[in-house]
Amino acid sequence: MTSFTHLKAAIKLKELASSAPHLSDEGVLTPKRIDSFLAKNADLTLFYGTERLDEKILNTLFELASETDALKKMQAMQQGATLNFIEGVESENREVLHTSMRDFFDHRQTTPPAQKASELAYAELEKLKAFLQEIDAKGKFTDIVQIGIGGSQLGPEAIYHALEAYRKPGRKAHFLSNVDPDDGAKIFRELDLSKTLFIAVSKSGSTLETLTNEEYVKERLKKAGLNPKEHLLSVTGKGSPMDDPSKYLASFYIWDYIGGRYSVTSMVGAVLLAFILGMDRLLDFLRGAHSMDRAALEENPSANLPLLGALLSIWNRNFLNHATCAVIPYAQALYRFPAHLQQLSMESNGKRIDKRAQVVDFETGAIIWGEPGTNGQHSFYQLIHQGTTVVPLDFIAFRESQYGEDVEYKGTSSQEKLLANMFAQSISLATGQKNANPNKVFPGNRPTRILLGNKLNPYTMGAILSYYEHQVAFIGFMLNINSFDQEGVQLGKVLAMKIIDQMQEKKEGKPSDPKNFPLGQAFLRHL
Amino acid sequence: MTSFTHLKAAIKLKELASSAPHLSDEGVLTPKRIDSFLAKNADLTLFYGTERLDEKILNTLFELASETDALKKMQAMQQGATLNFIEGVESENREVLHTSMRDFFDHRQTTPPAQKASELAYAELEKLKAFLQEIDAKGKFTDIVQIGIGGSQLGPEAIYHALEAYRKPGRKAHFLSNVDPDDGAKIFRELDLSKTLFIAVSKSGSTLETLTNEEYVKERLKKAGLNPKEHLLSVTGKGSPMDDPSKYLASFYIWDYIGGRYSVTSMVGAVLLAFILGMDRLLDFLRGAHSMDRAALEENPSANLPLLGALLSIWNRNFLNHATCAVIPYAQALYRFPAHLQQLSMESNGKRIDKRAQVVDFETGAIIWGEPGTNGQHSFYQLIHQGTTVVPLDFIAFRESQYGEDVEYKGTSSQEKLLANMFAQSISLATGQKNANPNKVFPGNRPTRILLGNKLNPYTMGAILSYYEHQVAFIGFMLNINSFDQEGVQLGKVLAMKIIDQMQEKKEGKPSDPKNFPLGQAFLRHL
Repeated sequence: MTSFTHLKAAIKLKELASSAPHLSDEGVLTPKRIDSFLAKNADLTLFYGTERLDEKILNTLFELASETDALKKMQAMQQGATLNFIEGVESENREVLHTSMRDFFDHRQTTPPAQKASELAYAELEKLKAFLQEIDAKGKFTDIVQIGIGGSQLGPEAIYHALEAYRKPGRKAHFLSNVDPDDGAKIFRELDLSKTLFIAVSKSGSTLETLTNEEYVKERLKKAGLNPKEHLLSVTGKGSPMDDPSKYLASFYIWDYIGGRYSVTSMVGAVLLAFILGMDRLLDFLRGAHSMDRAALEENPSANLPLLGALLSIWNRNFLNHATCAVIPYAQALYRFPAHLQQLSMESNGKRIDKRAQVVDFETGAIIWGEPGTNGQHSFYQLIHQGTTVVPLDFIAFRESQYGEDVEYKGTSSQEKLLANMFAQSISLATGQKNANPNKVFPGNRPTRILLGNKLNPYTMGAILSYYEHQVAFIGFMLNINSFDQEGVQLGKVLAMKIIDQMQEKKEGKPSDPKNFPLGQAFLRHL
Repeated sequence: MTSFTHLKAAIKLKELASSAPHLSDEGVLTPKRIDSFLAKNADLTLFYGTERLDEKILNTLFELASETDALKKMQAMQQGATLNFIEGVESENREVLHTSMRDFFDHRQTTPPAQKASELAYAELEKLKAFLQEIDAKGKFTDIVQIGIGGSQLGPEAIYHALEAYRKPGRKAHFLSNVDPDDGAKIFRELDLSKTLFIAVSKSGSTLETLTNEEYVKERLKKAGLNPKEHLLSVTGKGSPMDDPSKYLASFYIWDYIGGRYSVTSMVGAVLLAFILGMDRLLDFLRGAHSMDRAALEENPSANLPLLGALLSIWNRNFLNHATCAVIPYAQALYRFPAHLQQLSMESNGKRIDKRAQVVDFETGAIIWGEPGTNGQHSFYQLIHQGTTVVPLDFIAFRESQYGEDVEYKGTSSQEKLLANMFAQSISLATGQKNANPNKVFPGNRPTRILLGNKLNPYTMGAILSYYEHQVAFIGFMLNINSFDQEGVQLGKVLAMKIIDQMQEKKEGKPSDPKNFPLGQAFLRHL
């Protein structure tokens, strides 16, 4: 494959970008436009009439998808091809099979690697079901603490908060991630240890933060006169140091073809979510994800939501040159979802070489950030409307609230006000406003899109999660970068270990060799 | 004042930017450099040897401060000059006196407006003290819910979480902001209403979200057989619709010279924080903020931490062209602090005209985002190290933990591991790494800075809050933009009201006039 920059469609798109429609021009944003630029699948509607494109640009984006075989790569991924690699250099060389973690419903994949992965995953689900039946029968546990960091925290935490409305009565989850000892100290103040289950989550069984926190948890359990083994589960790779029946009540497995940031639907998320929501709701969640996995294989690009989302993102990042994108859920329950998408997107596509091992001459991943609306409207929206840097917004919203409890105030419900605000933002950011007072001028022409569902429930949450997972993968496919490794997190780990060694030497009163990593010593002198 | 772009220092800095030091070049980052580029004040140390500057650039940045009278403007602000204005057009024309909210200690301001503001603020503190003594004597309340959005939520929420280690036993705070009805529904599931105090916070007394949520709270209290008046406080402007003794147990005042995002040390934050922490700790917090207010007046720029921070930020934003900056606290308790800084900075400096009412020809505020370390290292740091977009990082850390509970694992404590990781990130992002495998190459030369304190306690938290408040103000002073208004949030509000009206008409079965805001109707048809 040629470099992204030299693709025919990319060259055309670069030209088209200079004459991209101005949404603030009279007559550009019309009701008809809103109705034409929308797509539906898996019970979700994507409105993109408030993005800066027209039919010609859209068709050229479709050409980009076709020229880069985006859809074929998605099929290959779901079928178990080895897509996690870089040509000609040492790399992970793995399949990418998170879709198999939920391939238990209609239209299942039939290739041997995908089938095998799905069978293994289903066996873990059965194990989990049996384990929870036992736990439920004993009625001993009310709280669950997930000890994990990165992908072992952000996704499960985001989904837990998104679905708290569906919690089993009396059950609560907590997340212990940071090596900061105050993270654990605070959580322990809220817990009755005798009723608490802990899950240590690390694929390799060697993550420094997770092992440190696991140690801390064991000490606290012992101090409370409890047997750590009776309270501790692990989610890890088979045969890892954490796969040890002498230490854990039970161990659930993940595999090297499941990347941390793609692991929410594996046991990394499933154990906690099933404990909190029950197995049926976990299955609904997986069913929703699977339905979007199917949508991602849709040949018609204007009905393939993840592909469409990816094309819009590439258009904004690589042709309109917007370095960031803010994800704004108009749903308070999704308040931690942007932090998950931040990892999903930035760890996947924040890369400097392509799959041919060539340093790229184009921009890769965007910076993803966000807070819920309407809150953001009273915070950073000043810059979004009138700042010098344009930030495309990615809205998520639902027709109905989760709890169905609402108040009418001045003739409308809160849910209606919430949606009215989001639509108003999409329109005002597009059209802007003229005014004689330059401080009241809004330049407009600022892109937004809306993903609208009926209600934030387990099924919809699964579909939305999968929508973003596949959007990120499609971006990688089209840019021809490897969205499934993370070499960039290694160097910091290595240097941290050096400084930790220096701290130990200092404590033991050993004289430090001035030639041994002097930059580390320079900082340590200030402690 | 000339436009920022035409300042002598700005012209020099633009030239210097093209030859800014490369931190990854052999011999640039040395222990000596780390020791030379640091500043101390108010018990905090700012390390900036890992920013891309040298002595010449630093001195030219100091020239920028001097050429723009930055220090004089800071003095004028703290003395009560009318700085919130735009020349020649209708604007707010107000003083900016959040520093008076804590000007009760040494070296107090002596100008009449500052003195008057400080006296008024102190009277509210006395009122608060008496009120809390009454409350404490009755022992009725355990929980407090702040009903407010934007500045009435983000700052108080961030500080509450930062100082949870210092909570009075049994007391807990909650925040109800979003008009999303699920926000309230969820909070109500956790509360014993009979023991809960609510504070409605709105300067104008007319914020839609806050009034809606207040209404919701009143309904819930009534349903529970409780008298809303016995549970409800307000923080508002004197004479606002929320200043009404028939509706509230007590009302505390704020003034139009306190902007929402600068209001944490006013009654907006003080009521909740004093209820949770006690008056003494609230006063420590104010004392810390005041000590940094004094540091911001320091004439020697290399000991003026907020000014230094502002100069480094302008260097990164306006000369090295980095559109974003990530604030990464290596302290889990500060996990909501980046969201506060996001508002503080982006609402203040995300502007398109300068104070002369001219459309700017330079970049204004940066996009501020962030999550705690070490968590971020397992998430978005991939892009930070190897992505194509450079993101300067702003680290915050402390020598000691808050709870003093820690675990030794493999010879070092968790607190040591936490600090080792942060230092390692600063070094590795600067130096990078060469490697024969292009996927293991780290380009380096990526700027970071570190703000280091002894311990995150009320005093230090006050100082850090004020450090960022003044950093943001200094940036505005030097760019000559108005950091104290927020016209950009108005248009969305107006259009939201139009759509809310359309929803009401629809509900009442009134035929909608197709000419009445058809873009709103276009979206409503999809609900």
